Amino acid sequence: MNHHHQDEQLNWFTERSVLWPGQAQSLQIEQVLFSEKSKFQDILVFQSKTYGKVLVLDGVIQVTERDEFAYQEMIVHLPMFSHHCPERVLVIGGGDGGVIREVLKHDCVQEIVLCEIDSMVVDVCKTYLPQLSVGLDDPRVKIEYRDGAEYLRQHPHSFDVIITDSSDPVGPADVLFQRPFYESLHTALKPDGICCCQAESIWLHMDLIRPLLDTCRNIFASVSYAYTMIPTYPGGQIGFAICSKSVRDNIRQPLRKPDMTLLQTLKYYCPEIHQAAFVLPLFAKRELEDSS
Amino acid sequence: MNHHHQDEQLNWFTERSVLWPGQAQSLQIEQVLFSEKSKFQDILVFQSKTYGKVLVLDGVIQVTERDEFAYQEMIVHLPMFSHHCPERVLVIGGGDGGVIREVLKHDCVQEIVLCEIDSMVVDVCKTYLPQLSVGLDDPRVKIEYRDGAEYLRQHPHSFDVIITDSSDPVGPADVLFQRPFYESLHTALKPDGICCCQAESIWLHMDLIRPLLDTCRNIFASVSYAYTMIPTYPGGQIGFAICSKSVRDNIRQPLRKPDMTLLQTLKYYCPEIHQAAFVLPLFAKRELEDSS
Repeated sequence: MNHHHQDEQLNWFTERSVLWPGQAQSLQIEQVLFSEKSKFQDILVFQSKTYGKVLVLDGVIQVTERDEFAYQEMIVHLPMFSHHCPERVLVIGGGDGGVIREVLKHDCVQEIVLCEIDSMVVDVCKTYLPQLSVGLDDPRVKIEYRDGAEYLRQHPHSFDVIITDSSDPVGPADVLFQRPFYESLHTALKPDGICCCQAESIWLHMDLIRPLLDTCRNIFASVSYAYTMIPTYPGGQIGFAICSKSVRDNIRQPLRKPDMTLLQTLKYYCPEIHQAAFVLPLFAKRELEDSS
Repeated sequence: MNHHHQDEQLNWFTERSVLWPGQAQSLQIEQVLFSEKSKFQDILVFQSKTYGKVLVLDGVIQVTERDEFAYQEMIVHLPMFSHHCPERVLVIGGGDGGVIREVLKHDCVQEIVLCEIDSMVVDVCKTYLPQLSVGLDDPRVKIEYRDGAEYLRQHPHSFDVIITDSSDPVGPADVLFQRPFYESLHTALKPDGICCCQAESIWLHMDLIRPLLDTCRNIFASVSYAYTMIPTYPGGQIGFAICSKSVRDNIRQPLRKPDMTLLQTLKYYCPEIHQAAFVLPLFAKRELEDSS
């Protein structure tokens, strides 16, 4: 369904998709480093002219070295700093390792399970994207090459924080946007657990986000949508559904704050941006915020 | 310097510029409505497939009907709601009329001067973009087809709010990013006046924003950078330098709030997003916030 189009003459990678009709973004290629079809998807890594190395899955940009921190820091630190002491963390998808890198910054973490269906993504990122995969060999990290939904059902009441770092709901990640998946997330969380799931853009996919949050609100005690800016995602913005199993008065208020050592490693997240990330433009607030 | 490239076969408009090397965005064209060279710049209006009508100046997208509200509401209501009673307002650039449309929503406004150097922009937008130009015939609006910097120098202590709705600092808008222009803004404001100037993207132009804010801090009593998300600007984000002539303890806190009637016309701005717009990602906060 997704497809990319390379203008060979000018050597640009152009991202087009049925998920964002009528618009496209392009990055200039300096050198293609890897291009192969795995059992699950097309995997492309190229050196771009101005965004560092770029990972593309099924024609859609997943990370660029220049702006990946905006996504990784927010999908991780929003739920992690909302939990009083996350010791066991599950990451679904995210085979590039960027999410793991950020989770490992929390000293309280004892074990991280990475559940990635496509081992070729992990191998490719270890070779070409060390900035992202740097934490994958940490002794606290255990990699399971298998279906995330199945893993969840087999591990009830096991995790403090679960992060779903999925690609778009076309192809292998489709199942990660369905109700049974969110029920499995609920089951796999400990009683005070929190999950944070990639939940698309308010500019492009309101029709997807609204029912997704409604589903979550039927399952979890509290649900909010937060967002980050990121230039190389379509529309420059992507959001997260943050769901808490226990009733929280205000999930927008972090329970913990980064110490100076952790803060020095960050480029996007800080306690002030944690709160601001939940403040939606009026059109999105009207559509997405729980009126109850 | 800027140039656009139309893939005739596929009928896409592609925006490339020396201001954002190595990246490009494209919108699918349904029909070109207007394409001519004025005395100052290339003017293009086309009907896009998914973003409504689009205005392009010198190859750079200025407004699309689908997301223009994000820019117009924020560049206007951030300074307007930061002033206790703006009666006289000057808009420099902004010949499309979108800024005027938003300024007119404030009942306290008695007179708006639009200082636009290029009369063809106004004429074209009146014909093709009535959603934007709707307010240009309001009796409170006076249009001056002349250079904004010169107009400022001839009207000292005249305005409560001045909004600089400029294009990028290449071509006719170059002068709007220089120190003498900001000195003229200061002169033309009343003692408690506020100005709000288009100030580019933290993702693309930090090297331009940092000295710009330093210049402003040498001239004005208080200076802040705020931003809005907007999918069809490069990187999906653009910011504003908001400068106050009088000392304000906290320009991030609006002095007035929209009443229900005004609120119903808005799609982006609300008092909560006013405050959140000043909360920068950490990398930008480190570079741009006044440490004094």
